[in-house]
Amino acid sequence: MTRVRDATDTETAAGGRGGVEFRTDPASYQHWKLSLDGDVAMLAMDVAEEGGLVPGYELKLNSYDLGVDIELYDAVQRLRFEHPEVRAVVLTSAKDKVFSAGANIRMLAAAAHEQKVNFCKFTNETRNGIEDATAHSSQAYLAALNGTASGGGYELALACEHIMLIDDRSSAVSLPELPLLGVLPGTGGLTRLVDKRHVRHDVADYVCTRPEGVTGKKAVSWRLVDETVPRAQWAQAVADRAEQLAARSNRPADGTGIRLTPLAKKRGDDEIRYSAVSARLDRDSGAAEITICGPDRDAPADVAALHVEGADFWTLRMTRELDDLILDLRTNEPELGTWLLATTGDASRVLGYDQFLLANSGDWLANEVTHYLKRTLKRLDVTSRSLIALIEPGSCFAGSLLELALAADRSYQLSGEVPGADSDAGPTVITVAGMNLGPLPMGNGLTRLQTRFFGDTDGLAAAAATAGQPLEAAEAAELGLVTFAPDDIDWADEVRIAVEERASFSPDALTGMEANFRFAGPETMETKIFGRLTAWQNWIFNRPNASGPAGALRRFGTGQRAEFDRKRV
Amino acid sequence: MTRVRDATDTETAAGGRGGVEFRTDPASYQHWKLSLDGDVAMLAMDVAEEGGLVPGYELKLNSYDLGVDIELYDAVQRLRFEHPEVRAVVLTSAKDKVFSAGANIRMLAAAAHEQKVNFCKFTNETRNGIEDATAHSSQAYLAALNGTASGGGYELALACEHIMLIDDRSSAVSLPELPLLGVLPGTGGLTRLVDKRHVRHDVADYVCTRPEGVTGKKAVSWRLVDETVPRAQWAQAVADRAEQLAARSNRPADGTGIRLTPLAKKRGDDEIRYSAVSARLDRDSGAAEITICGPDRDAPADVAALHVEGADFWTLRMTRELDDLILDLRTNEPELGTWLLATTGDASRVLGYDQFLLANSGDWLANEVTHYLKRTLKRLDVTSRSLIALIEPGSCFAGSLLELALAADRSYQLSGEVPGADSDAGPTVITVAGMNLGPLPMGNGLTRLQTRFFGDTDGLAAAAATAGQPLEAAEAAELGLVTFAPDDIDWADEVRIAVEERASFSPDALTGMEANFRFAGPETMETKIFGRLTAWQNWIFNRPNASGPAGALRRFGTGQRAEFDRKRV
Repeated sequence: MTRVRDATDTETAAGGRGGVEFRTDPASYQHWKLSLDGDVAMLAMDVAEEGGLVPGYELKLNSYDLGVDIELYDAVQRLRFEHPEVRAVVLTSAKDKVFSAGANIRMLAAAAHEQKVNFCKFTNETRNGIEDATAHSSQAYLAALNGTASGGGYELALACEHIMLIDDRSSAVSLPELPLLGVLPGTGGLTRLVDKRHVRHDVADYVCTRPEGVTGKKAVSWRLVDETVPRAQWAQAVADRAEQLAARSNRPADGTGIRLTPLAKKRGDDEIRYSAVSARLDRDSGAAEITICGPDRDAPADVAALHVEGADFWTLRMTRELDDLILDLRTNEPELGTWLLATTGDASRVLGYDQFLLANSGDWLANEVTHYLKRTLKRLDVTSRSLIALIEPGSCFAGSLLELALAADRSYQLSGEVPGADSDAGPTVITVAGMNLGPLPMGNGLTRLQTRFFGDTDGLAAAAATAGQPLEAAEAAELGLVTFAPDDIDWADEVRIAVEERASFSPDALTGMEANFRFAGPETMETKIFGRLTAWQNWIFNRPNASGPAGALRRFGTGQRAEFDRKRV
Repeated sequence: MTRVRDATDTETAAGGRGGVEFRTDPASYQHWKLSLDGDVAMLAMDVAEEGGLVPGYELKLNSYDLGVDIELYDAVQRLRFEHPEVRAVVLTSAKDKVFSAGANIRMLAAAAHEQKVNFCKFTNETRNGIEDATAHSSQAYLAALNGTASGGGYELALACEHIMLIDDRSSAVSLPELPLLGVLPGTGGLTRLVDKRHVRHDVADYVCTRPEGVTGKKAVSWRLVDETVPRAQWAQAVADRAEQLAARSNRPADGTGIRLTPLAKKRGDDEIRYSAVSARLDRDSGAAEITICGPDRDAPADVAALHVEGADFWTLRMTRELDDLILDLRTNEPELGTWLLATTGDASRVLGYDQFLLANSGDWLANEVTHYLKRTLKRLDVTSRSLIALIEPGSCFAGSLLELALAADRSYQLSGEVPGADSDAGPTVITVAGMNLGPLPMGNGLTRLQTRFFGDTDGLAAAAATAGQPLEAAEAAELGLVTFAPDDIDWADEVRIAVEERASFSPDALTGMEANFRFAGPETMETKIFGRLTAWQNWIFNRPNASGPAGALRRFGTGQRAEFDRKRV
């Protein structure tokens, strides 16, 4: 169930310490109806008005809060893993005459700033995930807007491959945030209008100032939707279009889904523990120490064995756990500003799993696992926490797990021998491998290695040329693959100072700096959404014109007009 | 003189209503020493401590405020127009052991939010202008850091082609904003480190957390500077390097500069008037009505005549006036949130001037004029005001002036005949021409037409194919070149409603929306600086952790530590 665990800990919609639970399953959905019919799935939004994540607002007109979106995220994930036979997904509403009114305004108005921002980030990731399913799993999403789609409701449609709008003279698409709430559409709407749907910027400007939105043929001619269909033909037209999209899919005909079994998770106040992932929460130092355990056995012998293992397959199990941990810490532990990333285990086994996935990338499940790892690493990239990788003896920063260190804002690799340590452990090494050279791109379209060596072709080539070779600290530092290589004498002090220093800095300035440094090079729609659009939205959310006592977001629905400081900034 | 006109109107450094004057000239500089020696110019920073734009702070250690930067902007402009013989510019300090301490912190801490943001925008534009001079006028800038360059001081160096740092064991480069002030380097530093100088992101992270900065060989190995030179060899090494840069220049050997004569400007409380540009300030509606007058005579017959005309040449005169007007309105009139852009005059003459510049683009002065127009239009693109173009009878939105309408958030072109109007005027037309097809790119590297039709190749081709043909409103709207084409009956109401509506919206949400819509398509270092970096900085400036009573920016220098809300957002 998508419920907060401890209501006393959680006062507002986006949750507080230890509050929001991201694990759910279709049997527990309160807000969505998932139905399957051959190669077409129907995901119908049917938000329970009284089913808000926390008390204080009613989710009328298919408006949503984080709880609704957690279920949507779960459904999108399960369709990829559990239903390989699905080739098109119809996203629609189970309510009459309304698709979705977007994010619930009373929830937003009451939420603390960091909760608003975290909520928008997760909804953005889910919408990017819908596009990723369309692009990489050949599960195309069709938005069947059987009623008005406003704000976040229309933004959800914008993440779909094709948008149909019912033509009944009243159903419209709209982005009314600016005129009604004094904020921006928060989940990629502006960027997708101009960069994805190629709506002219002046038309987009006009659309975003019309709270009533756009209906019918005008919505088509302005590229806001792809087609409109009269009510009488609606059901048939949606079915036809879904079949057409399904027919384009290269999804295998004979795939049998695996079950995403419930995640084993133990959460205490100072520890979160899964099977392959754990975190120690050090509230005094403001840090979470995250450890990823490598595989405890070798990779399967063949894809048949992979399909038998299913959710137990190490890479998938570890990725699911890491994904849940990231979401939990982000939402429930905003004061843990530094994440220390460690690994433990056998690097050669990690590389074995990587190699297995690369060698079997034609298998739909292997493909899903790799793309899921990609998305989870992207989640790390846009996480507003300082990421510090600690590479110590017994670690396994190789291939896919080396990505953790490459994603980090800085990394420390222990140099030389450790007196008294188990001599079997040998020196601390990292290993570049195939997973670092393409399959796991960042949101900017480059690999983390390409981003790291942006503009330094020789550096990139030198790093890539080491593929498969274990690199000790001095060599890794020389190659630019790690930031620092302290020896045993300096290690503890250097790491301690780094963590203490991080905790002493302005959390806001750190967030801004990290968001700027992590994405060198080209920008994409995705980086624009998380960089440009999110940064502006954060600023606007934080301004009295939106969130002050007389701000538009706070006054919405009160009958009182907002009062603005008219100075342009 | 770079002084505020009316001290009673202006309480803080970035100026208030009618306060800050951008016109200056070398004879009036208080803070810079410009010296010329053949093909090398020396621009030495020598900030007058007591010369702050407004009272309340001392500009110690070559720290700067808007007044210092206004002089720098003037110098960079004059070097391009008045000194074509200059092929390299040495940017250095006239003070001993310090290059520049960056933006003055007491000034920043006391400035209102919109003043901080506006100040950063102008300094960013000036630094982009330095890069533009290096790229397009072959006037390469050499940063000769004869002492420590901190914060904005180092960011100024980052805008230069080559950075030399004196090696005296104490002179460092640093970006101490995050650890000392809880804000970001505000003038492109983060972006230039990773995207221009290709500093690895983890190294950049580390550098930005070291308030003491980086000296000597380490600064070179981390790519923060290009070379270090011991004090004994300094003067000779700088001279040698300047000569090498000058030798690479393709600047003409025989150019004779023109004089940028003082701009004629009359400023009243509700009107600003130049020779070819004027603005009516309507404080009731919150709008500035800007009118650009086309040429009152034909373009010169040849380049010799252009050089005789000099600053009187219409395009240059108009551009200088528009540039000053943009800066004046931005800084001094933050409550005029909508700019209405009109033109009046003979479109064929505008096209004649355009054609003259295009035909003579090999002439250094013609080249300068076009690039200056390009930069001024870019200034418009990043202006946080709603831009509405009004295309009426007697207007001359053709070629270069059509760019104003293309830069606008929306445009209205009057359709059909106007009863009773002068029949000679004919219908209202716009004209696409050569200046719209390449020479005036936006910050994203695309022309405004390419940006407008981003992803719509056919639309772009159709618009470009009309080059030279006057387009009436219906046709222009059909082609997507204007937003609306109301007729005479609807015109006044539609325009009035648009202006009223704009004034009723949240100014912050408008700023965010416009910043997102104006830059479809690719991103560049420039758009990253104005979009991603600026948006984050604005957010951070606005947060209590920086600007609250216990924030880092406010507490700097008081001996008290900042108090942070540690929640990550």
